[in-house]
Amino acid sequence: MQYSKNFYQIKSNEDIFEKIKEESQTIGYYNLPFQDIKDIKEYAKTVTQKDIVVVGIGGSSLGTYAIHKFVRHNTNEKKIHCLESTDPLDIMTKIKKIDLDNALFIIISKSGTTIETISIFKYLHSLVTMNNANCVIITENNSKLDKYAKEYKIKQFDIPKNVGGRFSVFSVVGLLPLAIVGVDIDNIQNGCKMIYNSFFKKEKYYDLLMEKARFFVENKNRFNINVVFSYSSLLEGFNKWYIQLWGESLGKVNINGTKQGLTPIGLLGPVDQHSFLQLIVEGSRDKTVTFIKVDDFEYDIKIPDISLKHLEELDYLNNLEFNELINHQADATIKTVQNLKDIPNDIVTIDKIDEYNIAKLMFSYELLTSIVGAFVQINTYDQPGVEDGKIILKQIIKEKNGI
Amino acid sequence: MQYSKNFYQIKSNEDIFEKIKEESQTIGYYNLPFQDIKDIKEYAKTVTQKDIVVVGIGGSSLGTYAIHKFVRHNTNEKKIHCLESTDPLDIMTKIKKIDLDNALFIIISKSGTTIETISIFKYLHSLVTMNNANCVIITENNSKLDKYAKEYKIKQFDIPKNVGGRFSVFSVVGLLPLAIVGVDIDNIQNGCKMIYNSFFKKEKYYDLLMEKARFFVENKNRFNINVVFSYSSLLEGFNKWYIQLWGESLGKVNINGTKQGLTPIGLLGPVDQHSFLQLIVEGSRDKTVTFIKVDDFEYDIKIPDISLKHLEELDYLNNLEFNELINHQADATIKTVQNLKDIPNDIVTIDKIDEYNIAKLMFSYELLTSIVGAFVQINTYDQPGVEDGKIILKQIIKEKNGI
Repeated sequence: MQYSKNFYQIKSNEDIFEKIKEESQTIGYYNLPFQDIKDIKEYAKTVTQKDIVVVGIGGSSLGTYAIHKFVRHNTNEKKIHCLESTDPLDIMTKIKKIDLDNALFIIISKSGTTIETISIFKYLHSLVTMNNANCVIITENNSKLDKYAKEYKIKQFDIPKNVGGRFSVFSVVGLLPLAIVGVDIDNIQNGCKMIYNSFFKKEKYYDLLMEKARFFVENKNRFNINVVFSYSSLLEGFNKWYIQLWGESLGKVNINGTKQGLTPIGLLGPVDQHSFLQLIVEGSRDKTVTFIKVDDFEYDIKIPDISLKHLEELDYLNNLEFNELINHQADATIKTVQNLKDIPNDIVTIDKIDEYNIAKLMFSYELLTSIVGAFVQINTYDQPGVEDGKIILKQIIKEKNGI
Repeated sequence: MQYSKNFYQIKSNEDIFEKIKEESQTIGYYNLPFQDIKDIKEYAKTVTQKDIVVVGIGGSSLGTYAIHKFVRHNTNEKKIHCLESTDPLDIMTKIKKIDLDNALFIIISKSGTTIETISIFKYLHSLVTMNNANCVIITENNSKLDKYAKEYKIKQFDIPKNVGGRFSVFSVVGLLPLAIVGVDIDNIQNGCKMIYNSFFKKEKYYDLLMEKARFFVENKNRFNINVVFSYSSLLEGFNKWYIQLWGESLGKVNINGTKQGLTPIGLLGPVDQHSFLQLIVEGSRDKTVTFIKVDDFEYDIKIPDISLKHLEELDYLNNLEFNELINHQADATIKTVQNLKDIPNDIVTIDKIDEYNIAKLMFSYELLTSIVGAFVQINTYDQPGVEDGKIILKQIIKEKNGI
């Protein structure tokens, strides 16, 4: 009797850990927390413009937006504007809010030839002359955009070749615009390092991430949707970043030719209690839910101690801080879900709103994504499924132009 | 031999149509296109404030936001601010942008005792005195909030009892704030009427909506995720509104005690080509995709006819309007998905960006939701799954207060 096999098998945690250790030697994002960021901080100090215009789509802007949205209330007076969509009304509306003559344009494209980014760059170029005084370029070394930058002596920063767009937030892609608006990027690196060390030393985050990833993979056919339910509006950007990271990394054909993919959903509490929660509670059991809470918002605005005639039944809320209310709302939703007993869920509590904590959250999600990818035996770092669209687009336009 | 059955069966289109006709006599949203809106328009004319503050969560603000976001570039100089989250930093950030002494506060709560809305209302009340000059209340007749309004002679508008929050956009809930900022609400009604008539006269939209709903229901176990992929940033609000409408209406236990639910996802093109598209193309086949395109953006900003050194390979885009580019991008994505042959998809093309067209889109989605709900034999209009959370929240706070 002979036996051979060609089916998908979930490997041991130890095997996966070895795989992760091995790929951390070649996949660039793992080591971003340890990169030298002196140049970034020095350039940031020289920026005098008030409007910081990030021209970049997908991984070139989502991470920056996620961190900025979270810590924005503690940054300097400079504003970040993200130009990414080719929607003409979106472009017009955003440009109206920018003082073009007193703006710094940060053009970000890893490949150097991203259609949206270069098209918008050209449009901006027709409105205001781009030069080293108002423009900085972030791209891969030796890309066509890099060559353009060098030709016109425009300051350029490198995206390392082995750092993919959706894993680039902790590279210059995210750190440069964030440093310019006064975000503490040293503390971002500290948050990442904390998670990195804990994981690779097989401490708390090793157990936590391995267990979570294994659960997702073992139950992926039953629970094909992973909801992140964030109880703070400040995590809206994080949710979007998570959706890209999870969707684009894990939606792949694996080594056995099987289509894999876990569908990410980002919700915000308490608003989505009035929208999506009903579906979680009474809908099909196809979702896991990760609740994210902020322990201390450090703002103590209160529901005032006033009684409105006929609305006295809500007086039990008086004197409550909104900080407390939103967390009680989170706890009530968590309890509702846990009472049902058949919805897998976990809770992440962020201590406070700062760079260190958002970096911990995001770096741990990057690791989680890598681990799930290793379990399902896919290439977590490419995106072959979107290449066809680019080719078809080129054909459509060239046909239209009669070329 | 005797036979009895207790299982779910998909009824005929004719049966469903009869069910819809019948419920349209009692469920209020169907007839909103025909309501008298003179009072709303008259009140709107009297508003002199520049900052319009909508205090309302879920169905009380999502629809307004959806329409406003779509047609905002053609409205007057007044601004809409939506206060809904209990996140203290979100409240602080938004309030900073409002001139409190020159603002109109629109307090919207169907039940009259929505915790978020009343808590924020009380907080605002402690900052600025509320009276008939700067406040208007929208609630159900005889609710506690209605009684409060009458006690203090504050202008009040009725939400009809039989119009649910997520189906209330075409009632005073949406129409009042929209009319105030200069949205053409007559044209909104015209768009709704067009769809209503076509459906109930069994013309184009009867066939289209019936067929689509039947497909979703017949294949709900295989395709449990319904993606809306909108190729305009102006549809961001529509996507959010769709998620509430679809998720909260259809996530229900049906008459046979089976948990139903189709999971809505809202994407924006071209941005999400760089995020979620990979998952659609190479991930598990658990999604349907509805593409929404805008035929004419009526803005003709162009990619300028300039050639950037080293970036000449993108010169084929020169002279293209962004309007054309975004639609070519949509077409390229559609072709990519259609080439795969195993992803169910359809395309909605909106003629132009105006009130009439967004109303058509939204009213047709309301009908589609009702039809799917009728097919799966649920109550489309309640939300029993979120009631437990409200009770638990009250317990948590009362326990904390030692009551």
